[in-house]
Amino acid sequence: MNTDILDVVKAKKGQLIKCRRDLHKHAEAAWTEFRTASIVAETLTRLGYQVSVGEEVIDAEVMMGVPSQQELISHQERAIAQGADPKWVGKMQGGKTGVMGVLHFAQPGPVVAFRFDMDANDVLEATLEEHRPYREGFASVNSGAMHACGHDGHTAIGLTLAEVLAEAKNELAGTVKFIFQPAEEGVRGAKAMVSRGIVDDVDYFVGLHLGIGLKKIGTMTCNTVGFLATTKLDAVYTGVPAHAGAAPETGQNALLAAATAAINLHAISRHSQGASRINVGVLQAGTGRNVIPDKAILKLETRGTTSEINEYMYKRALTILEAAAVMYHVKLTVAPMGGAANCTNTPELVARLEQVALKSNLFKSILPDGNIGGSEDCTYFMERVQQKGGQVAYLMVGTELAAGHHDSRFDFDEESLVTAALLLSQAAVELLSKN
Amino acid sequence: MNTDILDVVKAKKGQLIKCRRDLHKHAEAAWTEFRTASIVAETLTRLGYQVSVGEEVIDAEVMMGVPSQQELISHQERAIAQGADPKWVGKMQGGKTGVMGVLHFAQPGPVVAFRFDMDANDVLEATLEEHRPYREGFASVNSGAMHACGHDGHTAIGLTLAEVLAEAKNELAGTVKFIFQPAEEGVRGAKAMVSRGIVDDVDYFVGLHLGIGLKKIGTMTCNTVGFLATTKLDAVYTGVPAHAGAAPETGQNALLAAATAAINLHAISRHSQGASRINVGVLQAGTGRNVIPDKAILKLETRGTTSEINEYMYKRALTILEAAAVMYHVKLTVAPMGGAANCTNTPELVARLEQVALKSNLFKSILPDGNIGGSEDCTYFMERVQQKGGQVAYLMVGTELAAGHHDSRFDFDEESLVTAALLLSQAAVELLSKN
Amino acid sequence: MNTDILDVVKAKKGQLIKCRRDLHKHAEAAWTEFRTASIVAETLTRLGYQVSVGEEVIDAEVMMGVPSQQELISHQERAIAQGADPKWVGKMQGGKTGVMGVLHFAQPGPVVAFRFDMDANDVLEATLEEHRPYREGFASVNSGAMHACGHDGHTAIGLTLAEVLAEAKNELAGTVKFIFQPAEEGVRGAKAMVSRGIVDDVDYFVGLHLGIGLKKIGTMTCNTVGFLATTKLDAVYTGVPAHAGAAPETGQNALLAAATAAINLHAISRHSQGASRINVGVLQAGTGRNVIPDKAILKLETRGTTSEINEYMYKRALTILEAAAVMYHVKLTVAPMGGAANCTNTPELVARLEQVALKSNLFKSILPDGNIGGSEDCTYFMERVQQKGGQVAYLMVGTELAAGHHDSRFDFDEESLVTAALLLSQAAVELLSKN
Amino acid sequence: MNTDILDVVKAKKGQLIKCRRDLHKHAEAAWTEFRTASIVAETLTRLGYQVSVGEEVIDAEVMMGVPSQQELISHQERAIAQGADPKWVGKMQGGKTGVMGVLHFAQPGPVVAFRFDMDANDVLEATLEEHRPYREGFASVNSGAMHACGHDGHTAIGLTLAEVLAEAKNELAGTVKFIFQPAEEGVRGAKAMVSRGIVDDVDYFVGLHLGIGLKKIGTMTCNTVGFLATTKLDAVYTGVPAHAGAAPETGQNALLAAATAAINLHAISRHSQGASRINVGVLQAGTGRNVIPDKAILKLETRGTTSEINEYMYKRALTILEAAAVMYHVKLTVAPMGGAANCTNTPELVARLEQVALKSNLFKSILPDGNIGGSEDCTYFMERVQQKGGQVAYLMVGTELAAGHHDSRFDFDEESLVTAALLLSQAAVELLSKN
Repeated sequence: MNTDILDVVKAKKGQLIKCRRDLHKHAEAAWTEFRTASIVAETLTRLGYQVSVGEEVIDAEVMMGVPSQQELISHQERAIAQGADPKWVGKMQGGKTGVMGVLHFAQPGPVVAFRFDMDANDVLEATLEEHRPYREGFASVNSGAMHACGHDGHTAIGLTLAEVLAEAKNELAGTVKFIFQPAEEGVRGAKAMVSRGIVDDVDYFVGLHLGIGLKKIGTMTCNTVGFLATTKLDAVYTGVPAHAGAAPETGQNALLAAATAAINLHAISRHSQGASRINVGVLQAGTGRNVIPDKAILKLETRGTTSEINEYMYKRALTILEAAAVMYHVKLTVAPMGGAANCTNTPELVARLEQVALKSNLFKSILPDGNIGGSEDCTYFMERVQQKGGQVAYLMVGTELAAGHHDSRFDFDEESLVTAALLLSQAAVELLSKN
Repeated sequence: MNTDILDVVKAKKGQLIKCRRDLHKHAEAAWTEFRTASIVAETLTRLGYQVSVGEEVIDAEVMMGVPSQQELISHQERAIAQGADPKWVGKMQGGKTGVMGVLHFAQPGPVVAFRFDMDANDVLEATLEEHRPYREGFASVNSGAMHACGHDGHTAIGLTLAEVLAEAKNELAGTVKFIFQPAEEGVRGAKAMVSRGIVDDVDYFVGLHLGIGLKKIGTMTCNTVGFLATTKLDAVYTGVPAHAGAAPETGQNALLAAATAAINLHAISRHSQGASRINVGVLQAGTGRNVIPDKAILKLETRGTTSEINEYMYKRALTILEAAAVMYHVKLTVAPMGGAANCTNTPELVARLEQVALKSNLFKSILPDGNIGGSEDCTYFMERVQQKGGQVAYLMVGTELAAGHHDSRFDFDEESLVTAALLLSQAAVELLSKN
Repeated sequence: MNTDILDVVKAKKGQLIKCRRDLHKHAEAAWTEFRTASIVAETLTRLGYQVSVGEEVIDAEVMMGVPSQQELISHQERAIAQGADPKWVGKMQGGKTGVMGVLHFAQPGPVVAFRFDMDANDVLEATLEEHRPYREGFASVNSGAMHACGHDGHTAIGLTLAEVLAEAKNELAGTVKFIFQPAEEGVRGAKAMVSRGIVDDVDYFVGLHLGIGLKKIGTMTCNTVGFLATTKLDAVYTGVPAHAGAAPETGQNALLAAATAAINLHAISRHSQGASRINVGVLQAGTGRNVIPDKAILKLETRGTTSEINEYMYKRALTILEAAAVMYHVKLTVAPMGGAANCTNTPELVARLEQVALKSNLFKSILPDGNIGGSEDCTYFMERVQQKGGQVAYLMVGTELAAGHHDSRFDFDEESLVTAALLLSQAAVELLSKN
Repeated sequence: MNTDILDVVKAKKGQLIKCRRDLHKHAEAAWTEFRTASIVAETLTRLGYQVSVGEEVIDAEVMMGVPSQQELISHQERAIAQGADPKWVGKMQGGKTGVMGVLHFAQPGPVVAFRFDMDANDVLEATLEEHRPYREGFASVNSGAMHACGHDGHTAIGLTLAEVLAEAKNELAGTVKFIFQPAEEGVRGAKAMVSRGIVDDVDYFVGLHLGIGLKKIGTMTCNTVGFLATTKLDAVYTGVPAHAGAAPETGQNALLAAATAAINLHAISRHSQGASRINVGVLQAGTGRNVIPDKAILKLETRGTTSEINEYMYKRALTILEAAAVMYHVKLTVAPMGGAANCTNTPELVARLEQVALKSNLFKSILPDGNIGGSEDCTYFMERVQQKGGQVAYLMVGTELAAGHHDSRFDFDEESLVTAALLLSQAAVELLSKN
């Protein structure tokens, strides 16, 4: 049967690339993927999937780093203006732009989930002739939003895979779940979907990314490692302003609280059990030169090679932030802005998918592992699946890049889209085949 | 003769208030007083004064805290649209909006200078019925610029005085200089005028402000004290960005340099010889949560009850700013953004003007001194005049206020305009009279 | 009568100097003045005064900066070995080395108190030929304790005055109180005596110092000003040690808590109402290079030109010390180690004593005021007397010095002892004379 | 032949333990091992080794953390009083207490070096019945010096091995070098010996420790790993004192420089390529509460899993220390106090020695590797040997401990001395055997 699948996929190449370019052109950043998610939902519905969106798949209480209501509304309007079906957009109010499609095959079998992320970066896309999306007319028309991490490709692969499996419906067993996640950038979206329980019944869970660490077509690994557990948070100090010349002692200085916090945060002791990280990436404080600053915001993140180390960093960070508030008599509010776990793939599933990759003849080099070198909130899905007894694997498919991830000139070789779609189709057949 | 002068001034009351309201309506902030200065230059010329503007009275190298070229150009255009004579505006390019008018009387005598400031604040004027300028239709039409410190009144008083003295030309001796200074807010403008030498020949120098510390009509002092010497500066740190998870050690952290500087700046030792102040009013650093911050700006100021103490604070501040740059391998650029000296009035002139005020019967209460409670760059003129052997006095004329200085609802009793004009007219006659 | 008194005092010159040199030779630091206080108590008893010592005049709960029990015992033993009467030493256990002598004259009249301090400094006296106490054989035999502030002279003056007044008993009215205070150095002793209520009934209170600010024989002031209110405190942080290489994250770092506190303490905002001071004079932390430091001590002080400003500094300091403990998960204990108030002399008494000084013909120059330039806990007595309706004055008598106060080569002109004794005798007669 | 060697070693058990106990009783800390080194030198001479000591094997310029001249002299005298031969002590002046013994065998062959450390810890030995050295009368008689790391055992093993090989002289080929190193504690001594070139000709280098990580007799590894590269340094700031109340601005505050350095040192960015460490273990600053502190000392260390990471930490530390000096106008002197490299054993030699250990039947468990969990300056020898083309291995021999290393109740099972001597004897035979 595999041969058939391969041909089916190859025949969809044009449509796959066209879809990716359409998404690229209408890039939508985290929690504003109204058009993208509407297209996904509409397509899955058309293919016969049971589709859930909005509150059904997103727990509003666990959403992190959500834009203001005003921004959300203006992006909803933009999405509709750019062709999104108002019916779907209406279900996604408040930024609840997640989509899940489920297809039960006739024969019983395992539940297999594929997860794809949909959001763009907060990047202004390059307007250079050498930048292909610009040259060929599919650069983002949404200023300040750009697919600079390949999620446009991921979504297009996901939709292609969904179509392939729908067409092969009669030859498969079990259940397939397609999870289209918003807000992976800033690791803000996965937790809200996990919280809805949508992967609690999953036996096999597969994640995928293009080109991180693997910069050549023909390379891949079924065993992506090095996920750093991370917590993102914003800390806001509120003090009391005062005239810096006339009555400085009556002020309560939020800037000095923030500065003291920043230095001491970076001085948190290293952890002997693995790597840790802390970064205060942004500090903004004060309004005028001659006013004791009454407002300060810190945007920071902690990381660790294990969730325990990240937790150690996060707790120490909270204590320091709070103590700095006490020190300067200012108020502190802390808001979670994102998070990801550390996770290790399940060796059995890795081995099984390596066999699939090997047999596929798609790759010159299948690496035993590859380091993602950062954080991915797909780990929250993976962690939950493993806790419930399922198996997980996060695949990396190599591709040449025009510029690094998150760069305004980022672009990838679209051949990798086909390769990835072929690989996943065969993986699906492996996991969902009738005995 | 005084009686005549008094009548002359009183007859100009309507015109004085009209002038003030016109300036109020077309408020222009520091270094953008193109319309105001054009009106001043045109009026002085019409009255027979020798008028100098632009480069003649402003040393570009000593201008501090100048807006961007783009802003200057847009404000020039606005000024012309609001009636400024392009001839004058053309001479004031680059923000050189200072004006001096000189009148030599027939008989020899001393050189007497009067100084007035012209700029508005960066304040959005209140649009409330209870706010008279709004209610009576002369609130600022220039959004974000508002005369909330009374400089509109100062300028109107100056023009009235200039007219009075021009009309009394034959009865006076010596020379009178009218100095209309831009950019007093942020103490940015005086130094550039002093640097042109325009007060080097002045025998008597008189400055004036309305309503600081004296909140009642009928109060005044000829001996304003408590000028805090001050230095305003911006410090910019430039480092190297890096991914906070993947390669933090390759970054050069401008945020931590700024935070370390901020705390240690505030820890500069107190000075045993008088009061000192330091304030980092603004700190802005970093671009993204997961990037080692490569950019930071600090907006700060030092103060002292003497210029020596301020100098001590400023030098310590520079050292700390520089050391923090070394500590974090980042580059530092420091830009002066403003400054003022400490200054003490000349007792002889104070006593002489107190006699004038006493005889004028304008005031119920003439106070021996009054504290300005802040910084004024008029002190640069005063310091220079004293260094050259002249005498100086800075007068304060009381007035009821609708709200404090720099408040968006600031307004004063226009009766004080007449009082101040009457007082200065008599002071001028005293200092310039044929013996 | 005054003439008589003057002759009486002059006749005691040899004895006065001998007494001072004996005290100088047996210098005793704060709370260990067992020999000095025993001599004082014995002398006053012999002269007919009612004498109170130990618990009668010292409130143990308010004693600050007391040496360890072991040190106290060894100094008691030393005192006895150096001739102190064990009877008196026994009453002064725990360092309660204060003495008060009271004499009621036959006729009713006011209560007049004279206060003298007895303690030496923690200074190793110079062993140089040029240093007179060494050359003439009365340098301190108690290593590490030296009278480098003239309290030996103060005590000797006090005893001479007590003798003069006892001898003139029949010619005086009212009551005289002699207060010999321990532990003025570090401003540790006065509060414990005030707390016993011993000056609650005082009508006139007189304090005295030699040579601060007045470096010439023949100068004096009855109006010493510039007392800085102050608080001395020790802060101890206790954390948890850990191996810095193997498990640094398990430590709780007292050194970093102390360092953070130190910097932020110095960054406490200046106060607009007067001068403030803060100093962390000593910081000692840690035990070994490769151990996370679990112990740190800070010795610090705050000051202010008013008690309110000192209180502001002290409260801010406490908050910062506490917040730094929270920040590093360490424990904090704070111990008061000394304190003094700000105080202003009573103008009436100052004027009256100026007349005494003037008539005495002892001085070439009587200054309207003189700045003590530091802190003195005599202010606690003065504050209390004023609160209870009495009058106070703190006199300064000029003298040439061999080296500054607290210098190991400090010495003064002994002629000033006689001058001071003469002055105080006449002041006593003035205040205690039968109408 | 091995059998013979084993019997020879076993016969020396009593003498081995006696030697260890004698050294334990006369414990000598770093750079003061005058008696220990004299015994080593004398013994090696007696056995026919060419012996080098003092300047021949120690480069004075590279010695780190040497005690004061006064301490050295008093320890020399103590050593002689405790039986050291003054002839040897005289050659070791200045603390140059290293010893090397060389024996050339008749037949040509490789150069094999064994290294042992000799110094005790700065620990006061426990005086408890449960502590065997105390109970059995061989606790340290040198107060404050205790063999709490087993170097007494190492030295005794080394001397036994030297005797065994001297006796087997005719059966061996090549050259053997015995290196007895002073001052391993604080990683201060190896560099000075390496600098003399004494291992430049070594083909096989073997180091040994007892009981770190292996807490059971019968366990061992030939592959000790996890050596942290480290640098130990002292930083001294010298400022200018001033009265904290009267003239604080004239001081130059060494305490604040040190505090700022301490916090920012701990805030040095983590390194993405491996573990790093920093610790300011000691900070001592200031003399008196009311004096601006003019002196501060920081004792600190950096570490890294590679020498490159340690170098990164060290260079960042130096920059921060220097910048803090600039910030507070104080002078900085930095003194190196110790150091060690990271090093990896040579796999070939590890494998060869594992075979020896296996054949010896001495061990129940031969582990593939074991983590030393800290720093050892033996790595300087190892690094140099590898740079010159030789092979190295650092062995760990397990033993039960009464308490952890550096604990005042530390003691080990003396059976391990015999085991280690047997193992090294067989290793020597393997490496030096005639083929």
